[in-house]
Amino acid sequence: MNASPALPPFLAACRRQPTAHTPIWIMRQAGRYLPEYRKVREKVGFTALTRSPELAAEVTLQPIRRFAFDASIIFSDIMVPIEGMGVALEYAPGPIIAEPVRTMKQVEALRPLVPERDVPFVMEAIKLTRAGLPAHVPLIGFAGSPFTLFSYLVAGKPSKEFSVPRAFAQAEPEIFARLMDRLADAMIVYLRAQAGAGAQALMLFESWGGLLGPNDYRRIALPPVKRIFDGLKDLDVPLIYFANQCGGSLESIATLDVDVVGLDWRVSLGAARKILGPARAVQGNLDPAHLFAGPDVLKSRVDEVLADAGPGPGHIFNLGHGIWPETDPDAVARLVDYVHEKTARK
Amino acid sequence: MNASPALPPFLAACRRQPTAHTPIWIMRQAGRYLPEYRKVREKVGFTALTRSPELAAEVTLQPIRRFAFDASIIFSDIMVPIEGMGVALEYAPGPIIAEPVRTMKQVEALRPLVPERDVPFVMEAIKLTRAGLPAHVPLIGFAGSPFTLFSYLVAGKPSKEFSVPRAFAQAEPEIFARLMDRLADAMIVYLRAQAGAGAQALMLFESWGGLLGPNDYRRIALPPVKRIFDGLKDLDVPLIYFANQCGGSLESIATLDVDVVGLDWRVSLGAARKILGPARAVQGNLDPAHLFAGPDVLKSRVDEVLADAGPGPGHIFNLGHGIWPETDPDAVARLVDYVHEKTARK
Repeated sequence: MNASPALPPFLAACRRQPTAHTPIWIMRQAGRYLPEYRKVREKVGFTALTRSPELAAEVTLQPIRRFAFDASIIFSDIMVPIEGMGVALEYAPGPIIAEPVRTMKQVEALRPLVPERDVPFVMEAIKLTRAGLPAHVPLIGFAGSPFTLFSYLVAGKPSKEFSVPRAFAQAEPEIFARLMDRLADAMIVYLRAQAGAGAQALMLFESWGGLLGPNDYRRIALPPVKRIFDGLKDLDVPLIYFANQCGGSLESIATLDVDVVGLDWRVSLGAARKILGPARAVQGNLDPAHLFAGPDVLKSRVDEVLADAGPGPGHIFNLGHGIWPETDPDAVARLVDYVHEKTARK
Repeated sequence: MNASPALPPFLAACRRQPTAHTPIWIMRQAGRYLPEYRKVREKVGFTALTRSPELAAEVTLQPIRRFAFDASIIFSDIMVPIEGMGVALEYAPGPIIAEPVRTMKQVEALRPLVPERDVPFVMEAIKLTRAGLPAHVPLIGFAGSPFTLFSYLVAGKPSKEFSVPRAFAQAEPEIFARLMDRLADAMIVYLRAQAGAGAQALMLFESWGGLLGPNDYRRIALPPVKRIFDGLKDLDVPLIYFANQCGGSLESIATLDVDVVGLDWRVSLGAARKILGPARAVQGNLDPAHLFAGPDVLKSRVDEVLADAGPGPGHIFNLGHGIWPETDPDAVARLVDYVHEKTARK
């Protein structure tokens, strides 16, 4: 097989087609590790940044100007559509919700999301970013998974164990189920609107699904995710599911109709591919800590990820989690260049 | 096979021998979910409690008086021997270290642990507790794994991602290796002293090993753990390794010479047993959140854990993590009674 000349490498890899090199982008590539991002944040708070199409487009483009990334992801936050549904929140830096959603009345009072009315700035930012991106760098739109959004909504603040929402899901199964349904409905229209505005791939972040054991994951986290992807499958864009810390639930994840499964650094890509099968690409999964190793050790860690992913098509290189603010941008440059160099198909 | 009449069920299960019922105890069973524990803590701080043999024995015995637990674990903290090595720390409630250990000079300045001199109150508490326990309830002694202790020592405070120690391990491999060695040496003498004082099983808590991907786990966390267990194998007590969030590293863990592997709730006990082999018992792994479900749902969750563990000997029932302070003690009573009733061999 030859590389597709028509598709950018990232989109080709999402479709398990051969590429001229393994594409790479990194989660939170627009963020605090970049001095140019911190400079923008000196002037504007996080919420204001997510609501300004011009500034959101600017910070989305910053890492693309600096590094040879193969994909871009719109700068925003998974809680942005939740604010659009009428929930007041602040970032400190994680989302803080003064009135956590814990009653059926509160769940029913959530406003059904109308993206063009409630979060128009996201679609506008996508249009501006797309106009500023080179043709070979596709733009990814994204949303949070229902269980992840639920965890923040019920906890009211970030938490190490999220014991409050986890206990709530067990103690209040009816309120929990209704809230998950409402969140799934909202994320379908939200992701569709992003694709309509120009997002060329859609990614769902299951940031907290790893709090659940395999049986609970299958029972309560998976069904709304399946419903979301079913609600997107008529769109002609690749669908990506980032299954953070869900290594014990890969058999369930293999039943989802998605193009790409993103994996954290605690899972072997090779072992995951055996379970997920040949019809899915994988994305990941260098430990963010490895960007702190010396240049030679970093290369050997990249080699391990590439070897684990295997030689076939359908691997998108990424970190296994968002990049840490303390990371040296020079290490990112070395990473991107080395992945391209090492995987170049002559 | 018949149940061993001589051995308490917990010790028999550690040795993969048949038992009259599946033994159960729970991590942090002496703790804040018990009103009688909170009453003790109204009068005495956490550090003082760990240093008072009488009070430590008292709170260790509290859950044994209330519930039909099959094992007891001495009340203490994994950082207690670290204080004994000369590191000043406070609990708030996690360990806070004003001067994190990050230089070779600080590593070399750590005092080699002499348990009888540096932490005599732990051995005294073990003796007092043993004297107060019924004969069929064995007492477990414990320590933290080198990687887990390292994480706290370098971070200086509890953290969600422990990015500081994880980056440190990559950036400063020599200081890291020396610190891990020093911690392993100390934990060997510490655990041996606990056995000498009367602990009938020894448990090593790999609380933060799950921060590492499978290759790093094998490279940096496993060797000092292996050294610790090698340093204990002449003792006639079962050795337990709690591998928290290490589901992706079970192939490495299977190489350890331990009797029991403790597993968190994110791993299937059945899948783990296939990898660990028949020579090891497993301990776990009900999600602590399931104690917040209604009584019937709780029973069905217990049934899932028992079915996953399989019918053979060598399963010790436990939670997959420490019990949460908000848990209703009545749910614990229902759990213990149901496990005993459901697994009774006539």
